[in-house]
Amino acid sequence: MVLRINGERLRADFDELAQIGATVAGGITRVAFSDEDIEACVWLGNRIEEAGLLADDDDVGNMYGTLPCADANAKTLLLGSHLDSIPNGGRFDGSVGVLAALECLRTLKEHHIALPFHVSVVNFRDEEGSWQSLFGSRGMAGQLRPLSLLDTSTDMTAFHASLARTGLHPEMILYAARDPQTLIGYFELHIEQGPYLERAQTQIGVVTHIIGRTTLDITFQGQAGHSGTTTREARRDALQGAAYFITKAHEYVRENFEHGVFNCGNIVVKPGAYNIIPEKAILTVECRHINEQVLQEMEKTLMLIAQGCANEYMLSVGHRRIQHMPAAPMHAPAQAIIAAACERLQLTQMPMVSYAGHDAQVVSSITSSGLIFIPSMGGVSRNPAEYSKWEDVTNGANVLLHSVLLLAEHVRAGEA
Amino acid sequence: MVLRINGERLRADFDELAQIGATVAGGITRVAFSDEDIEACVWLGNRIEEAGLLADDDDVGNMYGTLPCADANAKTLLLGSHLDSIPNGGRFDGSVGVLAALECLRTLKEHHIALPFHVSVVNFRDEEGSWQSLFGSRGMAGQLRPLSLLDTSTDMTAFHASLARTGLHPEMILYAARDPQTLIGYFELHIEQGPYLERAQTQIGVVTHIIGRTTLDITFQGQAGHSGTTTREARRDALQGAAYFITKAHEYVRENFEHGVFNCGNIVVKPGAYNIIPEKAILTVECRHINEQVLQEMEKTLMLIAQGCANEYMLSVGHRRIQHMPAAPMHAPAQAIIAAACERLQLTQMPMVSYAGHDAQVVSSITSSGLIFIPSMGGVSRNPAEYSKWEDVTNGANVLLHSVLLLAEHVRAGEA
Repeated sequence: MVLRINGERLRADFDELAQIGATVAGGITRVAFSDEDIEACVWLGNRIEEAGLLADDDDVGNMYGTLPCADANAKTLLLGSHLDSIPNGGRFDGSVGVLAALECLRTLKEHHIALPFHVSVVNFRDEEGSWQSLFGSRGMAGQLRPLSLLDTSTDMTAFHASLARTGLHPEMILYAARDPQTLIGYFELHIEQGPYLERAQTQIGVVTHIIGRTTLDITFQGQAGHSGTTTREARRDALQGAAYFITKAHEYVRENFEHGVFNCGNIVVKPGAYNIIPEKAILTVECRHINEQVLQEMEKTLMLIAQGCANEYMLSVGHRRIQHMPAAPMHAPAQAIIAAACERLQLTQMPMVSYAGHDAQVVSSITSSGLIFIPSMGGVSRNPAEYSKWEDVTNGANVLLHSVLLLAEHVRAGEA
Repeated sequence: MVLRINGERLRADFDELAQIGATVAGGITRVAFSDEDIEACVWLGNRIEEAGLLADDDDVGNMYGTLPCADANAKTLLLGSHLDSIPNGGRFDGSVGVLAALECLRTLKEHHIALPFHVSVVNFRDEEGSWQSLFGSRGMAGQLRPLSLLDTSTDMTAFHASLARTGLHPEMILYAARDPQTLIGYFELHIEQGPYLERAQTQIGVVTHIIGRTTLDITFQGQAGHSGTTTREARRDALQGAAYFITKAHEYVRENFEHGVFNCGNIVVKPGAYNIIPEKAILTVECRHINEQVLQEMEKTLMLIAQGCANEYMLSVGHRRIQHMPAAPMHAPAQAIIAAACERLQLTQMPMVSYAGHDAQVVSSITSSGLIFIPSMGGVSRNPAEYSKWEDVTNGANVLLHSVLLLAEHVRAGEA
């Protein structure tokens, strides 16, 4: 008989965790380093200890629960995701991955399954970027620098205070970096947050690429003037240039990139009165693509388009890159293992792209990583209405379990 | 010899007044009902009394200095403009009109010129709309209602406090309405605030129309969503619809209306993050046209264009009219008198449109009104760099004086 996780135990965990930071609308607010996030971590720590796993944490606040193998010098396989949420987010995003990992470890332990590597459940801190996007996984992957905590795009004083009360020290974040030599791989289970699996009536998605993402501020600069008396040929209206750019940029990305995304999420206009021609328009822009090189070309062309729009309205234009998260292909062997796990469990599966960022994207820079998707009802996410069928959650957890078992078989066979 | 005002006395007044609220940049900040505005009114009151004119004020804070005629039952001719400014505005906007009116009255008085009507210099309060656009002239014209002071677009508590310390009572504003039967007309001298007179190398502009103005808030409503995972066909991006509308609206007004203006001065996007598809975009919009009927048609068509843009992106759209100031033709006899005054003074003149609002626009609703423009260097206004040549200022004041004299001749001849 094929080994399976204990779905009822997983369900009990899920329901208990969903109480922490529960909102009236049925979602959760568990912002990184908030009271609710700390409460969730304490809860996870207790579950880890109850399960007889070794509890640990690191200098960016990631939590680990380890099932050690006989060989103390063996490498470690990480399984996990994140417990933090956006304000009024859903109950499934992140939580499903951490809880399924915990349940896998309990299942492995109670069936006394000997593995050729240590296995740890991991809860990465602030995946959602309430303070800094993918903070915990970037810390573990050695991507944080002391300067990372001097970023002025958010209120650093409050961030530092939040770290301090969690027992973390900004000057110590460097020490969260984990030696890649100690790792054998990473598997993450996550809800799709999109509609593709549901539409394809497929149970499991094997992620091939996680989309790369660049955020930019683009500023169009014209000249303020009296809206009534300034002649047409003298108008240098920053908002006209910006509006034209928004339309053109969407058009360009839509027509040229099947797997590209452009979003202008905000715009600030100055001085901002009915009767003053806008002097400045500052756009909050995001580009995504699954291929890192294409993403960079897309970014470059968008800046040329912005320059063209600026010229059209006699404006100047400048941009500032705020954040760049490179596109990440998932590792082929990890993909193959996930697909094989699905086959063993007789679950339908399909390769797919992740249009959202995930911890696996960062972890893949230091170790072989695989990402498993389960369907999201209606593709709804980042919303209290986010929902995945319980059957899909247990399917995902079982795929995670069998990915571990299959990796163990490969290692024993000397293939990994 | 043709009678002329005393240019040196006018210049001395101008320089003294420009000290009140003077800014480092060389402009003035004399926001309505501020300390500086009150100081300017006290200064004007002193000048009125020094000149031997009858000082008076009304229930919205307008100030009058009257040169009475022999017949106590005669009607009154008003001459004036406003002393208040926008923050960091210019020294000429408004002030020139009030000071020239005062100087005309002094000239008439010292030359013992008997007129068949009373003449008053008037300083209209808050023309600039620091609290409410054209507040003083609207009060005098009987256009204010108790509800006018409950408008929530600005902070009414602070407005009421400002009125109170000036000795004005919100519940009394109704009583500022002046019986049109007591008035014979209104002349206003103002700087052009645009480049047309300078370009045409013409000394005086005889305004034929003051542009009408409607301000609107237009709200495009879509649906928030994850910028990465939401599919293209499911995106309902409020900002895309808004941006397309901005481009289309400018295009429509540019191509269809020689004397029409469209301005989108601000835009607020919600929720307003890099990775969230905009749910709401609220546009701060202004339309101007010199013909009231055309203005209303333009507004209606713009709403149809907005609906078209909303449809294109699967959005809904709504609008709220914030303010409407009807377009006002100046009275033909008043225009003729101003043109005749120019001829008598051998000044070049041309008919022109005012693309900015002025007190004359409101006063024209209750009495025959004329508006005289003098050139603005480079068309610059609402700016400390605003400048008119002194020769042009005295020319304007003399045109104002002779408009009074010509009106008196017409009245005596029984034509007015």
